[in-house]
Amino acid sequence: MNMVDLIAKKRDGGVYAPEEIAFIIRGYTDGSIPDYQMSAWAMAVFFQGMTPQETAELTLQMAESGEQLDLSPIPGCKVDKHSTGGVGDKTTLIVAPLVAAAGIPVAKMSGRGLGFSGGTIDKLESFPGFQVELSRDQFFQQVRDAGLAIIGQSGNLTPADKKLYALRDVTATVEAVPLIASSIMSKKIAAGADAILLDVKVGRGAFMKTLDQANELAQAMVQIGHNVGRQTVAVISDMNQPLGFAVGNALEVKEAIAVLSGQGPRDVEDLALTIGAHMLLLAGQETELEAAYQRLQTMLQNGKALAKLAEMVQAQGGDPAFVYEPDRLPQAAYTRQLLASRSGYLSQMDAEKIGQAAVLLGAGRVTKETPIDLTVGILLNNKVGDAVEKGGVLAEIHANDLGKAEQAIKKIESALEIVDQSSSTQRLIYDVVSAS
Amino acid sequence: MNMVDLIAKKRDGGVYAPEEIAFIIRGYTDGSIPDYQMSAWAMAVFFQGMTPQETAELTLQMAESGEQLDLSPIPGCKVDKHSTGGVGDKTTLIVAPLVAAAGIPVAKMSGRGLGFSGGTIDKLESFPGFQVELSRDQFFQQVRDAGLAIIGQSGNLTPADKKLYALRDVTATVEAVPLIASSIMSKKIAAGADAILLDVKVGRGAFMKTLDQANELAQAMVQIGHNVGRQTVAVISDMNQPLGFAVGNALEVKEAIAVLSGQGPRDVEDLALTIGAHMLLLAGQETELEAAYQRLQTMLQNGKALAKLAEMVQAQGGDPAFVYEPDRLPQAAYTRQLLASRSGYLSQMDAEKIGQAAVLLGAGRVTKETPIDLTVGILLNNKVGDAVEKGGVLAEIHANDLGKAEQAIKKIESALEIVDQSSSTQRLIYDVVSAS
Repeated sequence: MNMVDLIAKKRDGGVYAPEEIAFIIRGYTDGSIPDYQMSAWAMAVFFQGMTPQETAELTLQMAESGEQLDLSPIPGCKVDKHSTGGVGDKTTLIVAPLVAAAGIPVAKMSGRGLGFSGGTIDKLESFPGFQVELSRDQFFQQVRDAGLAIIGQSGNLTPADKKLYALRDVTATVEAVPLIASSIMSKKIAAGADAILLDVKVGRGAFMKTLDQANELAQAMVQIGHNVGRQTVAVISDMNQPLGFAVGNALEVKEAIAVLSGQGPRDVEDLALTIGAHMLLLAGQETELEAAYQRLQTMLQNGKALAKLAEMVQAQGGDPAFVYEPDRLPQAAYTRQLLASRSGYLSQMDAEKIGQAAVLLGAGRVTKETPIDLTVGILLNNKVGDAVEKGGVLAEIHANDLGKAEQAIKKIESALEIVDQSSSTQRLIYDVVSAS
Repeated sequence: MNMVDLIAKKRDGGVYAPEEIAFIIRGYTDGSIPDYQMSAWAMAVFFQGMTPQETAELTLQMAESGEQLDLSPIPGCKVDKHSTGGVGDKTTLIVAPLVAAAGIPVAKMSGRGLGFSGGTIDKLESFPGFQVELSRDQFFQQVRDAGLAIIGQSGNLTPADKKLYALRDVTATVEAVPLIASSIMSKKIAAGADAILLDVKVGRGAFMKTLDQANELAQAMVQIGHNVGRQTVAVISDMNQPLGFAVGNALEVKEAIAVLSGQGPRDVEDLALTIGAHMLLLAGQETELEAAYQRLQTMLQNGKALAKLAEMVQAQGGDPAFVYEPDRLPQAAYTRQLLASRSGYLSQMDAEKIGQAAVLLGAGRVTKETPIDLTVGILLNNKVGDAVEKGGVLAEIHANDLGKAEQAIKKIESALEIVDQSSSTQRLIYDVVSAS
């Protein structure tokens, strides 16, 4: 077997045997296959695609390329959750304590991520003292005791994926569905998931701009899960406008606490309940979606979900009082308002531009090394379809730098569109994809 | 401008502006664009192709990536000739003195090449004492005095092409027509050609296996020539069976001398006269192909072409007596014969297998460093379509190692097919492609 022939095989539309995929991923991981062959290969995959069997094998090989977390000491079905990323996406902060309160063990590794605001791990650091690094023993013990722990990614998980992702990023081969799908799924499998719930975002603020693209990716990942024995369900949800009203780390934590208190924005609550309900189904805790949804809704109303978050914050070194008094969370020095220049109906709130405004304020990372400011961000006042009045507040900007606040206001203004006619509201959930 | 965006542009079917191609080739040459980006780019070009304008610009950028030979001190139109390579292809050895005898100045740089036998430079070294390295002044002086010089490639010509070709070779991106075409044409332009005659080989022993492929490559190169102001004509000629009867370096030199003496195999003579005639037209020395062909035929009959070869051999340090007494050229220690196992008609003489037999004997290079044996090779006795008799000689193997001779005989045997029915002969020239 040699890599030149294997590149040519894919280039010419061939289908790999499992051992050929193993040869490629092992060779790339150990350095015997150089970057310049791997990038030509990735481009050939972009054009020729991969069969579901090839994609599943690629996923397994990447999952097995480094350490793998064995969650079997923790009893029960471990369901992991992954979002492809969007603006104002604080769902994990809500879903994790929610399903933990319902009895699903949550042993989650989460990322910091590049993007419009920090990752789940960054957001949790809004709680002063919160520890995102636990030893494996502490991690397992906390999940056994509290049913919930969220820690930063540690160890040498999926080195093949890390290397390949970095290469794809600089060779215009990111946009190959089998490579995106196997990258995401390999990390979940290496992190020990028994079953996987995917939130595939679609729209202006998402990587997948069209429903067709989002569907293709969702299908590919669900198929991988099916082929590697990890039941997988994908929810396709809207990212044309931000999720909820809050964009920015501590601001999103506050909104998550509001949802967990039964007083959050309707869209965030609905998405969290839908995702959580599918996780209950995946874990075998419920058989009907409606029943699962209602059971979780009860957890919001009776305070058990919020209490679970407080329990985790305390277990990981934070002060649980902040969960009940979220106004004590760190705040930015200044707030500025964006007012409506005319009356009418909001027909568009471009999630990508609002995300860029958050980055301007310092809420997101531009490079891995950029420090992020947990306090800054944007509080929107409306959803698409709402009526607004001239002079009314459209958004509140939380900033530590007034110059940046001005830039952000301009950016947000360009993201919003007010029209005369009442326009239809945006759908939140487009589809749910599961193995047939 | 950045390379990731440029790769994505081609991947998505975009067309480059000239400055974008300049950015790519200059960046790759100076090392600011790494191999891993260039190989992904080459694969994108494989799938998306390039327009004639893009291909022309790529060619010019590669030609300008290093030193360029300025042949303008030599008066007259300098017509270069290039073959895409085949088995038994000794055409340059004939055509160069032939057209020089007719008054076209030939200032040719030629390669050693990897392949079934050596390049023109290797073959010329069959003349004891022949110098393939001349200073630029000596080279120009000889062309002015004798009208003909053939030297090895020297200097830093087309470094971008050298680097890109080596990369394509290990990333399964050789087979992209715009890249093949620009690679060939950039070298001819850097070597100072005013006009270019291409011999595109097609068939079993050629890189291009089908007439469609050969036509596509020929069209692409002729189009490049048109777009960069170098009139270019491509002859598409057969390489299903070897050209002539001789395969191997000194053996091919002898056959070339026979053709120059008017006593060579009909196919070699016809191809050389056709190519030479097109070169006369390109140089503006004739306006009608038939007249040009006849004028060159006269040069074979009156001994002027052979005398021109002798003149060049002498000018470059060899003994011209060898041209008139070719039996004095170096010979292998042993000859062995392959006899026909049955009577019938030769329906196939697979050029690729016969070429491989020559490599087994030591006539060709496997790697750049392999020494080649100028004396070994194969003398065939027939062309496809000929009648053969059981026990008759099909081929004479010239070897310096009897074990290798046996291997070569087996290989040649597998290349020949004898059938009962008289089969049609193979065409020699399929097409001539020129700019419309």
